[in-house]
Amino acid sequence: MIDRLCEKIPDHPEPGVLFRDLTPLFADGEGFRRTVDALVDAFRGQYDCVAGVEARGFMVAAAVAYASGAGIIPVRKAGKLPRETLSQSYDLEYGTGTLEIHTDDAPRGSRVLVLDDVLATGGTLGAASALLTRGGYNVAGFGVIMELTALRGRTQLGGHRVRALLRV
Amino acid sequence: MIDRLCEKIPDHPEPGVLFRDLTPLFADGEGFRRTVDALVDAFRGQYDCVAGVEARGFMVAAAVAYASGAGIIPVRKAGKLPRETLSQSYDLEYGTGTLEIHTDDAPRGSRVLVLDDVLATGGTLGAASALLTRGGYNVAGFGVIMELTALRGRTQLGGHRVRALLRV
Repeated sequence: MIDRLCEKIPDHPEPGVLFRDLTPLFADGEGFRRTVDALVDAFRGQYDCVAGVEARGFMVAAAVAYASGAGIIPVRKAGKLPRETLSQSYDLEYGTGTLEIHTDDAPRGSRVLVLDDVLATGGTLGAASALLTRGGYNVAGFGVIMELTALRGRTQLGGHRVRALLRV
Repeated sequence: MIDRLCEKIPDHPEPGVLFRDLTPLFADGEGFRRTVDALVDAFRGQYDCVAGVEARGFMVAAAVAYASGAGIIPVRKAGKLPRETLSQSYDLEYGTGTLEIHTDDAPRGSRVLVLDDVLATGGTLGAASALLTRGGYNVAGFGVIMELTALRGRTQLGGHRVRALLRV
């Protein structure tokens, strides 16, 4: 089902790249609900709250949070959070990015399930994991809708459990 | 409950402004669930899909979508959507912003509930509404967690129904 609702766009964002667009899955009420339920089932009883990585990860995280009664720790781009934050920089294809969390969104020691739509190189999710660990949380694992296995992103995730609903 | 979980930050982002931060509400599993349920109840039977405005609106929209079995139309900042888009510019305090939607996320004529965390000046939600209307959708209304009434954002929303769970 996920594969059927994933649109393949040749030569995007540059020639030779086959971009996989999950917006048709998000736009399909039944498909989105089943996707969220599968992530909840995969980690049932293993987390106290969820972290979503800006911006598409916010959609996955919020639905999983609602479905399981958990709270959300937003992992945001630099400068977006209004209270005291921790920051973590990471390498992008060109230059660096920075992610931030509030220092007090959830109790220290909480088990945090980290959610995003796609696991590609693992740079962003690896930085989110480092940030949450520095913040005193226990990373319970990573849940993503799709994993691009050729990019070996799992190697950046510190041996934590990873559940990808579709691996391509 | 929403007011209790809204953190007031004096002089942010500039002197004299009392910033109201809803991240403690998002981080509270029970509070977030009750918030989402209240928005679903307010528009029950009145929408076919939801639109969420990047980025915090994604969290509200995704949870409402999951709770009601609806799909999500992401309203994104310029350049983020991979397929054919419609664009709408709007005024910011300094300069202009641009929002985009895909042209084919949902069937034309769908009733779309537009969701965000805060209604302030109404500039962003007004632009989202114009964009969705140009895309052939019927705006079913606006649901927000909090409305800053002094900014009179409702006047920008074309007479559509607005439900704000907390008005300050």
